[in-house]
Amino acid sequence: MVVLLKKNADEKQLENLVAWLASLGIDVHKSEGEYETVLGLIGDTSKVDIDFIQSLGIVENVTRISEPYKNANRKFHPEDSVVEVAGHKIGGGHFQIIAGPCSVESEEQIISIAREVAAAGATMLRGGAFKPRTSPYAFQGLRAEGLELLLKAKKETGMPIVTEIMDLSHIDLFADVDLIQVGARNMQNFELLKELGHSDKPILLKRGLASTMQELLMSAEYILAGGNENVILCERGIRTFETYTRNTMDVSAIPLLHEKTHLPIIGDPSHAAGISRMVEPLSLACTAAGADGLMIEVHNDPAHALCDGPQALRPDAFAKVVEKVKKVRTALDLGNAAE
Amino acid sequence: MVVLLKKNADEKQLENLVAWLASLGIDVHKSEGEYETVLGLIGDTSKVDIDFIQSLGIVENVTRISEPYKNANRKFHPEDSVVEVAGHKIGGGHFQIIAGPCSVESEEQIISIAREVAAAGATMLRGGAFKPRTSPYAFQGLRAEGLELLLKAKKETGMPIVTEIMDLSHIDLFADVDLIQVGARNMQNFELLKELGHSDKPILLKRGLASTMQELLMSAEYILAGGNENVILCERGIRTFETYTRNTMDVSAIPLLHEKTHLPIIGDPSHAAGISRMVEPLSLACTAAGADGLMIEVHNDPAHALCDGPQALRPDAFAKVVEKVKKVRTALDLGNAAE
Amino acid sequence: MVVLLKKNADEKQLENLVAWLASLGIDVHKSEGEYETVLGLIGDTSKVDIDFIQSLGIVENVTRISEPYKNANRKFHPEDSVVEVAGHKIGGGHFQIIAGPCSVESEEQIISIAREVAAAGATMLRGGAFKPRTSPYAFQGLRAEGLELLLKAKKETGMPIVTEIMDLSHIDLFADVDLIQVGARNMQNFELLKELGHSDKPILLKRGLASTMQELLMSAEYILAGGNENVILCERGIRTFETYTRNTMDVSAIPLLHEKTHLPIIGDPSHAAGISRMVEPLSLACTAAGADGLMIEVHNDPAHALCDGPQALRPDAFAKVVEKVKKVRTALDLGNAAE
Amino acid sequence: MVVLLKKNADEKQLENLVAWLASLGIDVHKSEGEYETVLGLIGDTSKVDIDFIQSLGIVENVTRISEPYKNANRKFHPEDSVVEVAGHKIGGGHFQIIAGPCSVESEEQIISIAREVAAAGATMLRGGAFKPRTSPYAFQGLRAEGLELLLKAKKETGMPIVTEIMDLSHIDLFADVDLIQVGARNMQNFELLKELGHSDKPILLKRGLASTMQELLMSAEYILAGGNENVILCERGIRTFETYTRNTMDVSAIPLLHEKTHLPIIGDPSHAAGISRMVEPLSLACTAAGADGLMIEVHNDPAHALCDGPQALRPDAFAKVVEKVKKVRTALDLGNAAE
Repeated sequence: MVVLLKKNADEKQLENLVAWLASLGIDVHKSEGEYETVLGLIGDTSKVDIDFIQSLGIVENVTRISEPYKNANRKFHPEDSVVEVAGHKIGGGHFQIIAGPCSVESEEQIISIAREVAAAGATMLRGGAFKPRTSPYAFQGLRAEGLELLLKAKKETGMPIVTEIMDLSHIDLFADVDLIQVGARNMQNFELLKELGHSDKPILLKRGLASTMQELLMSAEYILAGGNENVILCERGIRTFETYTRNTMDVSAIPLLHEKTHLPIIGDPSHAAGISRMVEPLSLACTAAGADGLMIEVHNDPAHALCDGPQALRPDAFAKVVEKVKKVRTALDLGNAAE
Repeated sequence: MVVLLKKNADEKQLENLVAWLASLGIDVHKSEGEYETVLGLIGDTSKVDIDFIQSLGIVENVTRISEPYKNANRKFHPEDSVVEVAGHKIGGGHFQIIAGPCSVESEEQIISIAREVAAAGATMLRGGAFKPRTSPYAFQGLRAEGLELLLKAKKETGMPIVTEIMDLSHIDLFADVDLIQVGARNMQNFELLKELGHSDKPILLKRGLASTMQELLMSAEYILAGGNENVILCERGIRTFETYTRNTMDVSAIPLLHEKTHLPIIGDPSHAAGISRMVEPLSLACTAAGADGLMIEVHNDPAHALCDGPQALRPDAFAKVVEKVKKVRTALDLGNAAE
Repeated sequence: MVVLLKKNADEKQLENLVAWLASLGIDVHKSEGEYETVLGLIGDTSKVDIDFIQSLGIVENVTRISEPYKNANRKFHPEDSVVEVAGHKIGGGHFQIIAGPCSVESEEQIISIAREVAAAGATMLRGGAFKPRTSPYAFQGLRAEGLELLLKAKKETGMPIVTEIMDLSHIDLFADVDLIQVGARNMQNFELLKELGHSDKPILLKRGLASTMQELLMSAEYILAGGNENVILCERGIRTFETYTRNTMDVSAIPLLHEKTHLPIIGDPSHAAGISRMVEPLSLACTAAGADGLMIEVHNDPAHALCDGPQALRPDAFAKVVEKVKKVRTALDLGNAAE
Repeated sequence: MVVLLKKNADEKQLENLVAWLASLGIDVHKSEGEYETVLGLIGDTSKVDIDFIQSLGIVENVTRISEPYKNANRKFHPEDSVVEVAGHKIGGGHFQIIAGPCSVESEEQIISIAREVAAAGATMLRGGAFKPRTSPYAFQGLRAEGLELLLKAKKETGMPIVTEIMDLSHIDLFADVDLIQVGARNMQNFELLKELGHSDKPILLKRGLASTMQELLMSAEYILAGGNENVILCERGIRTFETYTRNTMDVSAIPLLHEKTHLPIIGDPSHAAGISRMVEPLSLACTAAGADGLMIEVHNDPAHALCDGPQALRPDAFAKVVEKVKKVRTALDLGNAAE
């Protein structure tokens, strides 16, 4: 952390600051120049409140140079983490494809899709029971009933299930869910993250609609700091000024997060663009960029999906995507997909 | 709502679509041209799922022309709503100034600030008990104890209190809070919004960090649709590429939201820029643009605020802001501030 | 400038770096810690290429702490600059209102508007001759003929004229223009900026559609570095994800730029929102935030403006804006508008 | 184009509007409903000025449904365009790799890099002679001398050369350049685009730093409308709130632009992230998403590049990227790279 002092900063206040930092175990190196005086803070600055220092009268600005996350930081954990979801490994060369409908609609629907996506190469089943919808008038999901239908599909097909939690008060309902998803809109629902930190369930943490990679890592840090190390990150597109796509898939987040953290990172090409025709090229792009998995919306009849229809592929198109994804992984010697 | 059909759209599928829309009470007007065929959907389209129509094979794209919010819409409620918070009116020409520290830290602190901001012209007291912090290592607020200290300050000074709720499971703790704030990070915590819709408490709904005005109105719609009409909106800056300020105050949101909705709108100049020196000019800008109130962070000793320090003014600077705000309101004949 | 070294950075390479910096007159202070080694670069770093240092194998990252602009920097020029445009001062307490149509359309039009805006309180006349239009099929302005019509209006009414230059090859045509505007799309047309740096004409430099304040200041620096000190900055809204407004007026840029630079800053409320109903509240917001002037589109018949119609006020509405702007300036003791 | 009328719109004014549209060859279909009246404009609306209609007193809002570009529109030109650059085809299955240094620095440098990138699989040589730099104090390129050095490298190695033009007054200097690049900052330098429209040179048009895909297509339209059909588009990252990368590579632009236009689209992974370690994964992502080529910065000694150093690979790393790109193209049956 580097602190640029104001010109003619009061000496007494500066002493107080240095003493306070020392009490936190931080060494301060002072560099004086003609134009500016700079303090270098050396030590574990992850717990130093940057806003507090910024607020001091003698400070012009503060810049954090090292990362504020620790448990998620690859510097302190150089090897890839491998998260295991009901026996399926993800990360460290292990690649999984999660597929299924936007929303669970009926027993027949979810079981038939589960079979179709499994046949096409998916290894986990996704389906929304609790649905975060912008409009109160839109379909909100079958909620608890949807979870039951997912569990039936799991029993019927043996596929692990992935579904989104929207409030910490629902956590008991998720006892048999294999991978609990935290949606983009809840990425900074810190009370929920803390609760999930006390669980031992694998958590799929989606990047917020307009969150930086660092904020995503700080949200992962909430879960890790609570003791739960089973966190998978998900890039699903960010909000930009572009209007042709719903969001802009930030494909560079995949290799960059791989540098910054040891946690696995998957891509969600369905939500990134919001256009089903883009799912194939974006799936291939994420794969080529080194993603540890994909989450793809598949619907047996896109025309009747109750929500997010334009993002959903039919199973036959999904099968072609899986085939091409496997070809790319083979070509780049990344290992076979969805072992 | 306007639907652009694909070239050579299947006639049978088109008939099905028209019949389905008719069943929802929507009339369809078809315009055929050399280059394109367009359907105009006339009627109450607020409950039509735009994604569903977009997903149909015969559709090229869909554009919503009328607003998807109804209870919040000024078209259906032309007069300004006036929300009353413990006897203090806001909206429709009534202007209030909410002030107080970022976080409640101690009984002495909150009571002394309450007295100082009241003396300077504030009419409501803010203070964070539950604090949403990006880092799990940052101070998280005094939580339930903080609420108790706020209630003591209310008893001591008579000022209504405003504080943030972070999870619906805490709602009972907020029984004596006068104005419940939903923070930017929870603007799309739909489970929380639904719960607050069943309350009769006034709600201060802050715009999300990267939310559109329409999304803010849709979140207000969640509360209004539940039966709670006491919603106050708050513009607090949005996320952009600019790095000199923490967020970019969208001052145009104030007059534009006034056109779109009858709900009161206040400005939060403290969080918008994240720089206390900007609080005065942004307060004046919001006031001149027609805000119904302001929420300003004030701390009796900014150098020791436990969080968000750089945003907080000292009481003497706050008093000057209030004085200038009143001058602007007088000059523009907007009524006196904080009656 | 602060350089964070990689762990185990090669000593020889480090020596070379320090020697090279010394040759540029930069002192290097080294701070070693358990987790990181940091170099503080002290001296005039405005000419050090941050990209070059970033590219070195021993460097993890580089952060510029002091500003890379010098001539535009208030630190080196503490008093407000006052720019004089044909006898009208702007900056340092002097406030001007520039008004006129989006495009010059005819002699009659421009002269009649000039008279109307002068009567309403404007002190300079704007009008587009060369028009940057997104579409090649849209009206591109009367070009050289438009400049002639502006000069006629100047002769007729005595108002100084403000108009946009689009290419450096046109510069001779602008010999009698009083204030040459560089539009948002040309803010980083560096060849044009260099050319204007060799002129002694006052330049009105608009912030780019998605430019940071620092980039705006660096573009001003291009002009100042060439020897032309007559630069006025203009905030005209930036591009964000919001769709209700064409751009988002960044009102905080006005006070923040006033801190960073001594140059005058005006607001352009017409282009910021792209909605004429927003011109009044945004004009008042800019004024209250301390702008040194306003530039407002006024059209005697908005329904027939050849471009950008929705942004243009009629003269009677403009007169009311001017009156309110003056009231705000009086209330805040900022001096009378448009002396 | 769809026009939503205000309630109680004046009948006479509506008649005038319909008559005016008829004079432009546009049919108007009117749909009246309880809540709203909508006009559907059918015909070639690409030349209708949306701003003009928006400005009318009887209009609430206008939405363009069909695209405003015509020559660039795939609807009117279904087959892929293949652009030929000195005998090298690009588009329609033909893939080229352009490589070279950020800036031309010396004869020895440019010739040695040219040889190295050719050996590694590049088919065209890039190198900056005129350099757009944010700071007036940064290296601005060797300019005319740099062009001469590029031409020497072309003569020596036979590689076609690609370099950026910054002002239309330089166009004669570019007579022997094979592919003229318009940089991101000049994407809306409309005077330059018009001039290039009158040339028959192939043009490489880079997407602006914060431009929408539609704006990129409109800028291409400027060139095409002038008669020059040899336009290649380039996605090079857009500006977002993310700070870990310089820009955000919008990989979805590649398949989406392929839908909207027949023009070839290449990716520039060097400028997208601004980090050389990201060049490989982003090159693979662009390739997998269907790009028609890549432009990659390569430097024989990245530590001494005069600009944009961190983006540049060394030749050995570049050779590995080319090899992997070819593997992905083979795996996906896209044809061999850089034939």
